[in-house]
Amino acid sequence: MSALLESYVSGAWFTPQIGADGGRPVLDAVTGEEVARVSSQGIDLAAAVAHAREVGGPAVRRLTFHERAAQLKALARHLGDLKDDFYALSRRTGATKRDSMVDIDGGIGTVFSYASKATRELPDDVVVLDGATEPLGRGGTFVGQHVWTSRTGVAVQINAFNFPVWGMLEKLAPTYLAGLPSIVKPASQTAYLTKAVVRRIVESGILPEGSVQLVCGSAGDLLDHLGEQDSVAFTGSAHTAEILRNHPSVLRNGVRLGVEADSLNCSILGPDVTADDPELDLFVEAVVTEMTVKAGQKCTAIRRAIVPEAMADTVVEAISARLAQVTVGDPADESVRMGALASLGQREEVRKAIEALRAGADIVYGDPDRVDVVGAGAERGAFMGPVLLRARPGAPEPHDVEPFGPVSTVLTYGSAAEAIELAARGRGSLVASVVTHDPQFARAVTLGLAPWHGRVLVLDRDDAAEAGQAGGHGSPLPVLVHGGPGRAGGGEELGGIRGVLHHMQRTAVQASPDMLTAITGRWATGAQRRAEEVHPFRKSLAELGIGDSITSATRTVTRADIDQFAELTGDTFYAHTDPEAAAANPLFGGIVAHGYLVVSLAAGLFVEPNPGPVLANFGVDNLRFLTPVKVDDTIQVTLTVKQVTPRRSADYGEVRWDAVVSNQDGKPVATYDVLTLVAKTWPQ
Amino acid sequence: MSALLESYVSGAWFTPQIGADGGRPVLDAVTGEEVARVSSQGIDLAAAVAHAREVGGPAVRRLTFHERAAQLKALARHLGDLKDDFYALSRRTGATKRDSMVDIDGGIGTVFSYASKATRELPDDVVVLDGATEPLGRGGTFVGQHVWTSRTGVAVQINAFNFPVWGMLEKLAPTYLAGLPSIVKPASQTAYLTKAVVRRIVESGILPEGSVQLVCGSAGDLLDHLGEQDSVAFTGSAHTAEILRNHPSVLRNGVRLGVEADSLNCSILGPDVTADDPELDLFVEAVVTEMTVKAGQKCTAIRRAIVPEAMADTVVEAISARLAQVTVGDPADESVRMGALASLGQREEVRKAIEALRAGADIVYGDPDRVDVVGAGAERGAFMGPVLLRARPGAPEPHDVEPFGPVSTVLTYGSAAEAIELAARGRGSLVASVVTHDPQFARAVTLGLAPWHGRVLVLDRDDAAEAGQAGGHGSPLPVLVHGGPGRAGGGEELGGIRGVLHHMQRTAVQASPDMLTAITGRWATGAQRRAEEVHPFRKSLAELGIGDSITSATRTVTRADIDQFAELTGDTFYAHTDPEAAAANPLFGGIVAHGYLVVSLAAGLFVEPNPGPVLANFGVDNLRFLTPVKVDDTIQVTLTVKQVTPRRSADYGEVRWDAVVSNQDGKPVATYDVLTLVAKTWPQ
Repeated sequence: MSALLESYVSGAWFTPQIGADGGRPVLDAVTGEEVARVSSQGIDLAAAVAHAREVGGPAVRRLTFHERAAQLKALARHLGDLKDDFYALSRRTGATKRDSMVDIDGGIGTVFSYASKATRELPDDVVVLDGATEPLGRGGTFVGQHVWTSRTGVAVQINAFNFPVWGMLEKLAPTYLAGLPSIVKPASQTAYLTKAVVRRIVESGILPEGSVQLVCGSAGDLLDHLGEQDSVAFTGSAHTAEILRNHPSVLRNGVRLGVEADSLNCSILGPDVTADDPELDLFVEAVVTEMTVKAGQKCTAIRRAIVPEAMADTVVEAISARLAQVTVGDPADESVRMGALASLGQREEVRKAIEALRAGADIVYGDPDRVDVVGAGAERGAFMGPVLLRARPGAPEPHDVEPFGPVSTVLTYGSAAEAIELAARGRGSLVASVVTHDPQFARAVTLGLAPWHGRVLVLDRDDAAEAGQAGGHGSPLPVLVHGGPGRAGGGEELGGIRGVLHHMQRTAVQASPDMLTAITGRWATGAQRRAEEVHPFRKSLAELGIGDSITSATRTVTRADIDQFAELTGDTFYAHTDPEAAAANPLFGGIVAHGYLVVSLAAGLFVEPNPGPVLANFGVDNLRFLTPVKVDDTIQVTLTVKQVTPRRSADYGEVRWDAVVSNQDGKPVATYDVLTLVAKTWPQ
Repeated sequence: MSALLESYVSGAWFTPQIGADGGRPVLDAVTGEEVARVSSQGIDLAAAVAHAREVGGPAVRRLTFHERAAQLKALARHLGDLKDDFYALSRRTGATKRDSMVDIDGGIGTVFSYASKATRELPDDVVVLDGATEPLGRGGTFVGQHVWTSRTGVAVQINAFNFPVWGMLEKLAPTYLAGLPSIVKPASQTAYLTKAVVRRIVESGILPEGSVQLVCGSAGDLLDHLGEQDSVAFTGSAHTAEILRNHPSVLRNGVRLGVEADSLNCSILGPDVTADDPELDLFVEAVVTEMTVKAGQKCTAIRRAIVPEAMADTVVEAISARLAQVTVGDPADESVRMGALASLGQREEVRKAIEALRAGADIVYGDPDRVDVVGAGAERGAFMGPVLLRARPGAPEPHDVEPFGPVSTVLTYGSAAEAIELAARGRGSLVASVVTHDPQFARAVTLGLAPWHGRVLVLDRDDAAEAGQAGGHGSPLPVLVHGGPGRAGGGEELGGIRGVLHHMQRTAVQASPDMLTAITGRWATGAQRRAEEVHPFRKSLAELGIGDSITSATRTVTRADIDQFAELTGDTFYAHTDPEAAAANPLFGGIVAHGYLVVSLAAGLFVEPNPGPVLANFGVDNLRFLTPVKVDDTIQVTLTVKQVTPRRSADYGEVRWDAVVSNQDGKPVATYDVLTLVAKTWPQ
């Protein structure tokens, strides 16, 4: 008899408090042997929630986004080194090497991606600014700024059986960055693999105690202990999703619920594609891949292949021919292309779904009840061969029944509008593909599909190679949102920093510019400037303070300056060189200085020429020319430290300066942000 | 007997099909006279939903964002001209002139704000791009771009009685911009005012038929007809919110539900504030204002005044003294400061709530059962005087009971952490104020409150005047988000374009750069460029096409160029002038050209000097210097039309150009967007 799977709660590994023969047995998908027994009996889930809130959460939120990102990067490296152990266990779930890569390497890659995105796109702080500062009065004394802050609760994840590693990590990385501790509840069928990864996470000591807990078995009364600051991210069936939506904690206590549920994804073949076009192969290959990877047990798999009527026979033949080459069997066997379903129960579900589909479609390839199996027994292993159906016209079943296995149905359409309408009959899906080389069809169908989908892949000869490397139709990517409206659950995950912000709270802060600067750590226009004796370019990153500023000397811009600049740069645009033509320009009414001359002169005014901590100007943001600078206007520039971001991996950091160039009337002529690299320290 | 209130559905005004004595009578809040009778009996709500989907939605979505914005601006002007009629009706709801301004002018102002924001911040198109293009492969042939598209359903709004005009318009403006038709369901108590405004909207013919419908009376089976593309925005009680969350359309059919419900907002007085500080007056004034505007019937009103223990007596005295000056009575009377509650039933509810509060707090000012009324009868009008309570230590009631009337409770705190903890006991609120002149306290408390609030106002002597003009604590602003987590419903509205996007669907599009360009109408890096014989600066806005481009001649940057530029501009930074010091710079290792010189030379290379349709360069975005340009490097620039945005109110528009400066090795040295104004037409 196998061992009871332990959970990790309240800082310790916990064995369910039941007899040695208790718990739900989980069987090897290939051999039918018992792998483990699973139960959450006896776990104090209230204590686990309290542990997350009181120990884990505060420990995470003491760190800045960059510190959290550095830990995630270390964690991803650590798990990467231990991959082989995970692969061995993954085979027992029925997964081939390719399937395991999607789950294990995909999960670890997501953590890497988040670590990198957070370092590049989030500040080294605990608050994220959202959008620009909004003036709330004419005098500039009252402004608004949206900010994102960490919620103070716990993120519960309830995962599906099909991606025991990716499913956990793709939720863990963004929530951890958001400052939330997680409680992971894997599906029992493959919980032993999730547990193996969590054990390595805990052992590593990389993340603070309390930030990751694991509950194997049923969720019990976990949701009863959740409140306004907590969230539940659920991946699974629409049926369970409905139960969760009905939970009093969700109905009454403000628990945020994110759902990724059923999805009848489609791929649409464009009317431009002939039997000779590469797009036909791409279409066929994608359908076959999505039917066979993870034995079709993917919420993103193509369930509906929507093709022009005239191409239906060709497509069915081509898919069938490819499916005939798919060997099914023990994933340990190198020749095997498709492994087992997760369990015999799962196979039974798929057979039932095919039976339901047959009310509106005919099987054109495969047999749900018969399959040749390589290297394992077809009786005890949950094997099933791929099954292709062809829908009868107008049949509703292909749009309603989701066979969670190696099954797809071919449907036909007439016009582009009809293709969109068929796709929409899925009532909201995670992803759709449009396989076409016609930009007009691509635009019409993509915009028609978009309101019904979280992701749309446009596949053609131009992007096929790289699209394939990125995983194609079936692969959610960490930088793109994953989720879909309607039947797909209405949730949204991933999408780079978007996935982090989903776990934070957006708040509009209204304050004076000085108060706003104190609250956000970023200088706001209108806030006090500190003009000190030392030029701020002589201060190291460590010495610079938000609001440090310099107001330059003045300079009068002469016609000779403009002429020389035009000659030197070759920018002889008439508005700078030809008084008569410039006078006719509706915006200028006479010779004006080049915008680039104005910012160049401003740099001449604010720069400190000697070697110092400011190493380089690496960019300019949001440059706007507000008032033309005319001949003999006098300009002056004020430069103020807006934001300081040390780089962890270098001896310098980034300083964003607010720059305002004004004229002799005090009117702003140009505003922009100057971006510089500044040494962390500098000898005085 | 008063008239039955008509609804506007399926393109016609509809009188409920009941006897002349049917319907729910609605009484004047001041006089008790019957104003109207309300019923939705006999309305075919399924037909109304179909009308919105089939007639209204398509008509709105045929327009671009700028076209929709122009209509909203015209509508706001039109309603502004008719304000006096609305004011007269508004008095019958119990509203004073000031109350009516919040509702009527506030609502119209919100429409103006949205019209203006959409013109400035949305493209003249039907798709909104979200974030940057994401490379999905190393070769640049496969990229991702998030887009927002219009949902194809209907937006149902179910509003509260307290803001019959603002409540409708603040939902209508963003949903209309999002491309959705609306069905408005006002609260019966004040539906006659909403109906008066809808009548004017319909009569004006400014918005297309089917884009606004009105259902007075009960919502009946309206929700039963909604599906995946539809949404319901609800403002009202937590009790009704729970019923809506439990509706099968929400649980199972993917209807999006946004809720703004109960909220026990607080204002916190900082420990720095003494009796001599202006912040004390600001705090007291805000509490009194929030108790009396709309007779305290505002979901944003201050229900909890949280003050340092030592200041409690002072604060109670000061608030009481001000409340003593509040005259209650007929809003038509000029001397009246506070009008009636919406109904006698509403007054009964408030009295019950005060009774519940008294389990944990003592009344220190006012009498729920007695009030002096000016110019009207206290018996038939729903009048009530303001009531101030003081909480007993640790009492839960002030955090749980929301008296929806002129009622507030004073609580005391010790530390900043305790103040945050007390605020959080409200379990999620719309807004909190922090009244302090101490930036450290402001930062600590604002960041502590933020996860529990949709808005935080920091009030002090610096922003008080403009904060007051903007409406202070109680006023949601169109440019800031409105909503709150937890008990407040978890919804979010307004916030400028954020409020529009809430009604759209975000989709990740994966495609080749060419396909992405075709789909979004914005040139994507890597997409084909069209280099034609005519310089694109010679093309008018009408002639320019996305992807039109010019690759310039080359130019070698000499040491003399750099020297001359340094001399002309005064930018003698050592990296451009001192070979030895430049060699020691860790990033350059020798003399480099000024970044501003590089972009100036690039302009010299791409500019077409003669008068033409390009009128001016008004800005530069996202300039990044990627590779230093060294002495004798040769540069070249490629300029490509990225986006074209005509301005409705001018004979020119904006053209965004993609600029890439590269060196002799083909390496990019600088990338940026150039922003120009280009005439719509130009004589050849």
